[in-house]
Amino acid sequence: MKARKNRQWRLAARPSGEVAVSDFQWVEEPVRPLAGGELLVRNAYLSLDPTNRVWMNAAPSYLPAVEIGEIMRGFALGVVEESRHDDFAPGDIVQGILGWQDYAISTGHAVSKVLRLSVPLDAHFGLFGHIGLTAYFGLIDIGKPVPGETLVVSAAAGAVGSLVGQIGKIKGCRVVGIAGSDEKCSWITGELGFDAAINYRKGSVIRGLMRHCPGGIDVYFDNVGGETLDAVLRFINLKARIALCGMVAQYNTGKPLSGPSYLANAINQRARLEGFIVMDYYDRAEEAIDALAGWYAEGRIKYRVDIVDGLEHAPEALVRLFHGQNQGKLIVKISEEPAR
Amino acid sequence: MKARKNRQWRLAARPSGEVAVSDFQWVEEPVRPLAGGELLVRNAYLSLDPTNRVWMNAAPSYLPAVEIGEIMRGFALGVVEESRHDDFAPGDIVQGILGWQDYAISTGHAVSKVLRLSVPLDAHFGLFGHIGLTAYFGLIDIGKPVPGETLVVSAAAGAVGSLVGQIGKIKGCRVVGIAGSDEKCSWITGELGFDAAINYRKGSVIRGLMRHCPGGIDVYFDNVGGETLDAVLRFINLKARIALCGMVAQYNTGKPLSGPSYLANAINQRARLEGFIVMDYYDRAEEAIDALAGWYAEGRIKYRVDIVDGLEHAPEALVRLFHGQNQGKLIVKISEEPAR
Repeated sequence: MKARKNRQWRLAARPSGEVAVSDFQWVEEPVRPLAGGELLVRNAYLSLDPTNRVWMNAAPSYLPAVEIGEIMRGFALGVVEESRHDDFAPGDIVQGILGWQDYAISTGHAVSKVLRLSVPLDAHFGLFGHIGLTAYFGLIDIGKPVPGETLVVSAAAGAVGSLVGQIGKIKGCRVVGIAGSDEKCSWITGELGFDAAINYRKGSVIRGLMRHCPGGIDVYFDNVGGETLDAVLRFINLKARIALCGMVAQYNTGKPLSGPSYLANAINQRARLEGFIVMDYYDRAEEAIDALAGWYAEGRIKYRVDIVDGLEHAPEALVRLFHGQNQGKLIVKISEEPAR
Repeated sequence: MKARKNRQWRLAARPSGEVAVSDFQWVEEPVRPLAGGELLVRNAYLSLDPTNRVWMNAAPSYLPAVEIGEIMRGFALGVVEESRHDDFAPGDIVQGILGWQDYAISTGHAVSKVLRLSVPLDAHFGLFGHIGLTAYFGLIDIGKPVPGETLVVSAAAGAVGSLVGQIGKIKGCRVVGIAGSDEKCSWITGELGFDAAINYRKGSVIRGLMRHCPGGIDVYFDNVGGETLDAVLRFINLKARIALCGMVAQYNTGKPLSGPSYLANAINQRARLEGFIVMDYYDRAEEAIDALAGWYAEGRIKYRVDIVDGLEHAPEALVRLFHGQNQGKLIVKISEEPAR
């Protein structure tokens, strides 16, 4: 049998500021035979996420840095084509960190079977994958929202943010989203039921928060860091909780930005800022997926996907993500969906 | 009976940067007769604390701002001389926010009786008053130290910091203190049993932390904020806890400093930063005082006081506090200790 061809994007250079297409190198190589304990996955969909940028830096983050010349790391979903692993069989639909490539050979580490098929396969990342779990556990476990409280979320039209706001509404909060265009603001208030939205490109976030959070802020789900976090810190209520999910504001600057000047207000208000990483919650995935599947079935959660066709377009799509030009969860379609 | 004379320091001006003696005005006025429900306290000792500076700003903190012309707010300890309050009788020794003055008239709010007399009266602030409770609850409740972990404390030779480090040792931690002179560093390692000390005026805190915290930092008790907090954030371990107690680094700048650039590391390490205020723990004071009294009796806790004689010297003593020139808990002796 002729070896399959594996098209890949490898890391060619570390971006010093904004990520660029030239930071990636296209490589084609044959798929090698499996060793014992390995499985071969044909990737169907690749998720593009802000955290991809963090992995491109030389410094380790919550994961080791991707080395120059290594296949770019990424969450993907696909189908098992061959298996010498006891837990996986050909035809299994799986997701995990499978990389920017047609075929992934895995030992099964950080790969899990997709069991809930109640949403389209391309939406798994958005609801039952790392995105849904990030939104669910970050809000529920770190944010601890209480009915009647005011929840603010940044990057509110993004994959995680849009879910956070909807879960916040389900939990009885007043929800205010911060997003980067009028279209996004209309979508989160009109379609998703957010109580208010602030377009940070059009005016002062501080004034927006003063207007839309007259009772202060109890929970902040922070996807961006930087000035937005600082603005929120001015208005936090007693015992406020800030879930630190991401700091997109500084991912493309090439160096850490100054942190929040108003951190002292966390003392005044006995507030908590807490970082979290979704991988820590994988053993509790069932809890999140049960809740999300139920809300989805009841029509209480909406999402949208922005599908880019073809692995060859992954680098330019990632650049687009950091300019906020995607509308919905950004996904690259690598190959046809497996039958199910 | 001739009315008692009450000497007072009132707030004359809001400092825009460093606090100055000229920010206070000396006033003498007679003590008025008590109304029903009030008590009259003759202050014996006044505690000078970094937080005093925060109260002088126009913006409210965890307490309302002291208004221009108001008696300067301060923790004090004294004896009840008259009472029309059911819970207090003449001769009771009490402490609370009683102000920079000879005599305080109080409704009993935030005033409590001093019941443990196992330490000299001038040490009550350091062990059984707001200082001891701040150190105890900030470390135990927010820092949650585990035996074998590495604890770092800033302003480590200060009233709170020196207790935090000693409690950390009792709890089985490796304790590293950051202080501002060789004398202070020698005192905390030689007398108090800290494992290591870093003199931040003599070299890089970052290098000091690299040297003395080879296994990273699990708990940071932060009294200063600013660059020191940023340095610590580089070395935090997984699930680190940072107790935000004070931000002395910015108290005298007149405006907020930039916050920590390395806050994103709190995401990587799933760390928590949490502010607290000792007043929230007053209803649990017994727990702290029991523990502190026990450790003191066993000789496991040492402290030192730096007593300034005479209310008239309070403003210059506060200035001295912010230059790190005190050696031990800074206290102003206002009048003779009550008999007990």
